[in-house]
Amino acid sequence: MANNESVDWQFSGSDEGKAASEASLSTYTSKLFALCDPQGKPILPPRGETAETSHTAERAVVKAVLFGTGNAYALQAVADYLNRDLPKKLSPDDVFMTVGCKQAIELAVDTLAKPNANILLPKPGYPSNLIRSIFKHLEVRNYEFLREKKYEIDLDSVRAAADENTFAIFIINPHNPNGNTYSEAHLKQLAVLARELGIMVVSDEVFRWSVFGSNPFVPMGKFSSIVPVVTLGSISKGWSVPGWRTGWIALHDLDGVFKSKNVLAAIKQFLDLNSKPPTVIQAAIPTILEKTGKEFFHRRQMFLKDKTDLAYYKLKSIPSLTCYMKPEACTFFWTELNLSSFVDIEDDEDFCEKLATEENLVLLPGIAFTLKNWVRHSIDMDTPTLEDAFDRLKSFCDRHSISGETPRKAVNGVN
Amino acid sequence: MANNESVDWQFSGSDEGKAASEASLSTYTSKLFALCDPQGKPILPPRGETAETSHTAERAVVKAVLFGTGNAYALQAVADYLNRDLPKKLSPDDVFMTVGCKQAIELAVDTLAKPNANILLPKPGYPSNLIRSIFKHLEVRNYEFLREKKYEIDLDSVRAAADENTFAIFIINPHNPNGNTYSEAHLKQLAVLARELGIMVVSDEVFRWSVFGSNPFVPMGKFSSIVPVVTLGSISKGWSVPGWRTGWIALHDLDGVFKSKNVLAAIKQFLDLNSKPPTVIQAAIPTILEKTGKEFFHRRQMFLKDKTDLAYYKLKSIPSLTCYMKPEACTFFWTELNLSSFVDIEDDEDFCEKLATEENLVLLPGIAFTLKNWVRHSIDMDTPTLEDAFDRLKSFCDRHSISGETPRKAVNGVN
Repeated sequence: MANNESVDWQFSGSDEGKAASEASLSTYTSKLFALCDPQGKPILPPRGETAETSHTAERAVVKAVLFGTGNAYALQAVADYLNRDLPKKLSPDDVFMTVGCKQAIELAVDTLAKPNANILLPKPGYPSNLIRSIFKHLEVRNYEFLREKKYEIDLDSVRAAADENTFAIFIINPHNPNGNTYSEAHLKQLAVLARELGIMVVSDEVFRWSVFGSNPFVPMGKFSSIVPVVTLGSISKGWSVPGWRTGWIALHDLDGVFKSKNVLAAIKQFLDLNSKPPTVIQAAIPTILEKTGKEFFHRRQMFLKDKTDLAYYKLKSIPSLTCYMKPEACTFFWTELNLSSFVDIEDDEDFCEKLATEENLVLLPGIAFTLKNWVRHSIDMDTPTLEDAFDRLKSFCDRHSISGETPRKAVNGVN
Repeated sequence: MANNESVDWQFSGSDEGKAASEASLSTYTSKLFALCDPQGKPILPPRGETAETSHTAERAVVKAVLFGTGNAYALQAVADYLNRDLPKKLSPDDVFMTVGCKQAIELAVDTLAKPNANILLPKPGYPSNLIRSIFKHLEVRNYEFLREKKYEIDLDSVRAAADENTFAIFIINPHNPNGNTYSEAHLKQLAVLARELGIMVVSDEVFRWSVFGSNPFVPMGKFSSIVPVVTLGSISKGWSVPGWRTGWIALHDLDGVFKSKNVLAAIKQFLDLNSKPPTVIQAAIPTILEKTGKEFFHRRQMFLKDKTDLAYYKLKSIPSLTCYMKPEACTFFWTELNLSSFVDIEDDEDFCEKLATEENLVLLPGIAFTLKNWVRHSIDMDTPTLEDAFDRLKSFCDRHSISGETPRKAVNGVN
């Protein structure tokens, strides 16, 4: 029976995912870690280590598993939590649980897109593979940022990109990888512009708990009296539970526009057909949101601020990398490669591959976030490890730079 | 700002999910439960009650949450578990974790379908909405069953439905809603036929732990020396943890056909872009699969067998419903409505709506599983409740039947 020569099997793997997969963060990460030498220096960032998980979250899930608590109150708990900061209150009917933020984005796109529609996305922003897969049936247009204004959204670029087929602008706030948080005034400007364009604002706010700069986080929902807003959230980043896959989407309606435009119905239909978050984690959501003490978030924010200060200081001695803004949120640095200062670095991918090979240090190439010749550094590690990472980075950059020490460019934010 | 008259919002909810959603099990369920009278008799089946959950599974997840056990061994554990019954052993590389069985089906379809491809599905079988959404880019063809042979697959109907664009046949074993398990000889016949047609067999085996008849469960993987096989599994049904959303897909390759046909690569790409099961449950999988005692499954099977005997006995006194085979697996009865014996029942949906309204008893209409004028009864409840359910069903049927007691048809399997 094992002779297959005679059988013409009528199936084969689809190519559809191939291009998307090649551009995925995990593909880059795997490739770069594979270039590291397990016999060499410790490989950085250390894999598999995660930040201290919220014990409140752990205890809540254990309780849900052992005592079979119902999951009926998750939606109410999310609404209550978000309402803390909102003038126009959400009801539980405005909230839907999702399997992490990826599904929430998919939901927003799948349920709201019309034929020939286009959507405005930040560049840099979402990983390329996410864009290619989730947004594949849509025309994607990009808007840009103003480096000189701490990566504010370039509203002129938004206006230039939009036309009568645009139905939404996606923002990421706090922004990964830029590392900034939008001010209340800036978000209001955006809301007014979106209203003028007749488009909704979808705001990905999963990093809202990782803010440590002077600009406090302001939820986009605050402006739902100007424009219809959809916000995306998740416990993954804030509570350091990356694998728990439990998030939400909230509709901040404007005078019933979502209801009249059939948006609520379409979302219910989407969720009816798609995976739901694990019941045992949903059941723990009320406790997780209500009982996690401020000191847990504060400790985490101070940790990240401390690492940011160190990384920023260390970057000053690496003139071939330009950091335009000291991050005020998230867990990354985002720097531009000054390609002309290198002797043998072709682009961001080449940089990251040589760095992994020579220094056992993994940075992600900007192209993974749709912006070539930038790199993203994780700073989420303890002080000695982070110092080691930046020492290796400096040594690598010096070795590959024209004079080993090129004069700093005026544009460099880290003078 | 709240005046919307002037804004022409450029978005609306998509209609795509609407048709699918109207046909979903949960839509039927919600509609029927809404027809029940909360002030009347107890509503059946009792909602929100679930079978005794496996304590081993609960303890394993608690341990994973509290002690952060890694999830690296889930794939090995699934391979080891399936290998207990397989002559050709699986390696962990042949196994992929999925977010419940729905994602596993989606994965199989998305990664393996070619343009103009068609696929063979059982009728009855998957819920209509699942078929409409997951299989929407494919032509779906149905194969049928032989009532007189305890719902064996009608292999002639398979042969008649297949052509050169067919790439796979999906089977459900044990079959929901038919309630039977395929014999080793029958599965071998199917394997030989699939080989002849050059198509793979995808076997949904989520109910494999709920078998209580004389026919033991035989995994389709046993025949992977004849035909390439994909099996789908999940802990939901077997361990009574419906909300845990953790399943798997296993590729039982035939001499490297899957590898050479790019199937493995396509699956990895799909999973890279899609949601993964919660890490804390994945981490518990080795303990769940290895440590759950046989007595847990045995207790559950004996419970279901006992309820099946009772329901079968009770059905004998309801001549307007025909049960062609006493179930040997799963948790349902599947009966045909003898429409001609009713005075005022139009079809299965009408039957179910009137039954819910008059008796506070919810059965699902066959159309939800693509077969009109059948109904599916849950029997997963305690004895007094089940007796009550069938007493109400009899009372309803008698009341709506021509003479209250029509003579039994010869075809009726419950003579």
